[in-house]
Amino acid sequence: MEDKEVERRSERSSIRCKAAISRKPGEALTIEDIIVAPPMPREARIRIICTSLCHSDITFSNLQGPPAIFPRILGHEAVGVVESVGEDVTEVTKGDMVMTIFMADCGECTDCKSTKSNQCSKFPFKIYPWMHRCPTSRFTDLNGEIIHHFMFISSFSEYTVVDVVNLSKVDPTIPPNRACLLSCGVSTGVGAAWKTAGVEPGSTVAIFGLGCIGLAVAEGARLCGATRIIGVDVNSEKHEIGKKFGVTDFINSGECGDKSVSQIIKEITDGGADYCFECVGMASLVHEAYASCRKGWGKTIVVGVDKPGSMLSLSSNEILLDGKSLMGSLFGGLKPKSDVPILLKRYLDKELKLDEFVTHEVEFKDINKAFDLLIKGQSLRCVIWMDK
Amino acid sequence: MEDKEVERRSERSSIRCKAAISRKPGEALTIEDIIVAPPMPREARIRIICTSLCHSDITFSNLQGPPAIFPRILGHEAVGVVESVGEDVTEVTKGDMVMTIFMADCGECTDCKSTKSNQCSKFPFKIYPWMHRCPTSRFTDLNGEIIHHFMFISSFSEYTVVDVVNLSKVDPTIPPNRACLLSCGVSTGVGAAWKTAGVEPGSTVAIFGLGCIGLAVAEGARLCGATRIIGVDVNSEKHEIGKKFGVTDFINSGECGDKSVSQIIKEITDGGADYCFECVGMASLVHEAYASCRKGWGKTIVVGVDKPGSMLSLSSNEILLDGKSLMGSLFGGLKPKSDVPILLKRYLDKELKLDEFVTHEVEFKDINKAFDLLIKGQSLRCVIWMDK
Repeated sequence: MEDKEVERRSERSSIRCKAAISRKPGEALTIEDIIVAPPMPREARIRIICTSLCHSDITFSNLQGPPAIFPRILGHEAVGVVESVGEDVTEVTKGDMVMTIFMADCGECTDCKSTKSNQCSKFPFKIYPWMHRCPTSRFTDLNGEIIHHFMFISSFSEYTVVDVVNLSKVDPTIPPNRACLLSCGVSTGVGAAWKTAGVEPGSTVAIFGLGCIGLAVAEGARLCGATRIIGVDVNSEKHEIGKKFGVTDFINSGECGDKSVSQIIKEITDGGADYCFECVGMASLVHEAYASCRKGWGKTIVVGVDKPGSMLSLSSNEILLDGKSLMGSLFGGLKPKSDVPILLKRYLDKELKLDEFVTHEVEFKDINKAFDLLIKGQSLRCVIWMDK
Repeated sequence: MEDKEVERRSERSSIRCKAAISRKPGEALTIEDIIVAPPMPREARIRIICTSLCHSDITFSNLQGPPAIFPRILGHEAVGVVESVGEDVTEVTKGDMVMTIFMADCGECTDCKSTKSNQCSKFPFKIYPWMHRCPTSRFTDLNGEIIHHFMFISSFSEYTVVDVVNLSKVDPTIPPNRACLLSCGVSTGVGAAWKTAGVEPGSTVAIFGLGCIGLAVAEGARLCGATRIIGVDVNSEKHEIGKKFGVTDFINSGECGDKSVSQIIKEITDGGADYCFECVGMASLVHEAYASCRKGWGKTIVVGVDKPGSMLSLSSNEILLDGKSLMGSLFGGLKPKSDVPILLKRYLDKELKLDEFVTHEVEFKDINKAFDLLIKGQSLRCVIWMDK
């Protein structure tokens, strides 16, 4: 009885630990001691095992003005262990291995109950500095200054607090430095091919941008049985890398001469690809992807995030006359709590490639090295280990 | 033997008949005598029984500059009887009742063989002044001047020549003044709901513009089991008309006060409609339709034809983040030779409404009255009878 009471009190108390804080736009993160408050109702406090760096973290470390906010703890691709839970938490318990997913899955709203949507309407995705239910921060620095959250995850910290709707239990036999990739980037790409586009066996796919997400689209398309996967990138080194993930053809978009990429794709595919994915995050490329799609049934899927307000250059009649469709893919159209476990199983069954995405691993103290590698295009995914 | 030879010769000879010619942009059609050449290989000469007027005919009678061309015989929604056939025609024979369909269906190309496309790649749709295979005209006036074709049909003539890929045989028990509606407008609307969008039972639909095509979308959505069909129009009289075709709610877009149409639709549908159709042909309305769609799974279908070059105002991130999709619907995604007969059967089975679309019928000599009625918004479809 006394032991339980002690445990309860300890679980309800704050934790002092290290976190990498983004204090000013464009500046390196600083590793500092912070105070992590105990989880509130429907939240869990997580000891992060490892976290990987995604481009969005870089974007929000550099962005000036809203929705950027400083100081903030970035990071959203992570695996950890539940340290304690707040009231009314039944989904996870202390000691559970979990992965964080920035898209909520409440299981109760119309969207979460529907098979057609992965956009929880009770806890919609947004770039927000607070927690979902009690919209305050669980982080303060040693001076008492509030440190903001990022994408409801903030995994660049030894401990973080996450709502249960953003947690998914994982089989502890899965290596954490593989599972964390499915928190965002790799899932987004694989899902874009599998769930959003519904790539069919024997089909032709074109992918604009062979970064982590574009390569994950290739991997998803390969798993779906696409027979031709055309990678488009300005960096010819991506050709060799792409082959690991099923890329069969490569176009260097900087070396097309007088032709546009879409002209070349239409020529080599006899009319256009069945599915085109824009994975760079440039609105102008969406049009090129659209133009590369086959008339009659081609689908163009927007996967890359552009600057707010970047407009598409598509005419109304182009949409009308072509029999093509245009769609977006947020988190690959995956339902966090039901589809991601399928991908984890496919990894364990040696179907889905994850190892090949991890090009670097660093200790937490070297987190800024992970930023450098990704900014320079030298890494696909760099895993950051918290306990090393 | 001798009779056959006479018949063959007669079939191969030109026919003098009356046609309504569009001679100058914006001017009334003039009914004149013309010479219709015999059909060339894979073509049939058709005696038109009746034809209905579609907005595209008006657009091309007014348009200055390409793809408009003068003089031209407009008209593309029609039913007629095969008068004679050119060489290598096996699909239809003299005396067959046929309808004309501006979208080709060759039955042989990748698209025609695929269930996913209705865009024949051997004879692609275009606004073209000639026939498909031998790209010349079959029409001359009595001065020998060439009269141009329109959409491979040119049905505002007692006789016309049409390629077999643009003809579909119809059961002669079907009234021609109903069947002709399925040549273009009504099929486009019904198909947009049925084939392009795949409207599901119990779903919510919003339709921008309740002209013939918008009402046909309502009719298609009703047939698909949509439970809520919201019509949007600037003309409140469309509310009553809409009810005939299943419209359950009406929004006068000119009387929304401070709110946008999309705000109202989102309020009354608790988040947005499952399917939104732009049937006016205004690129700016595509964005309003898109905004009216439900996040997570909403589909926006462009059905209206805007001026060439009219751009959509959609941001890249809007597409990315919303889980919605945008698609066009040319001829409602229908395959001319296999899907249109299904609609004709559903009319005969008293499931599909066609009678209600025919608001006016005129004799051929009064064809300009049909133009006036449609321009003034007084008719949905006006049938023009050639033999009256």
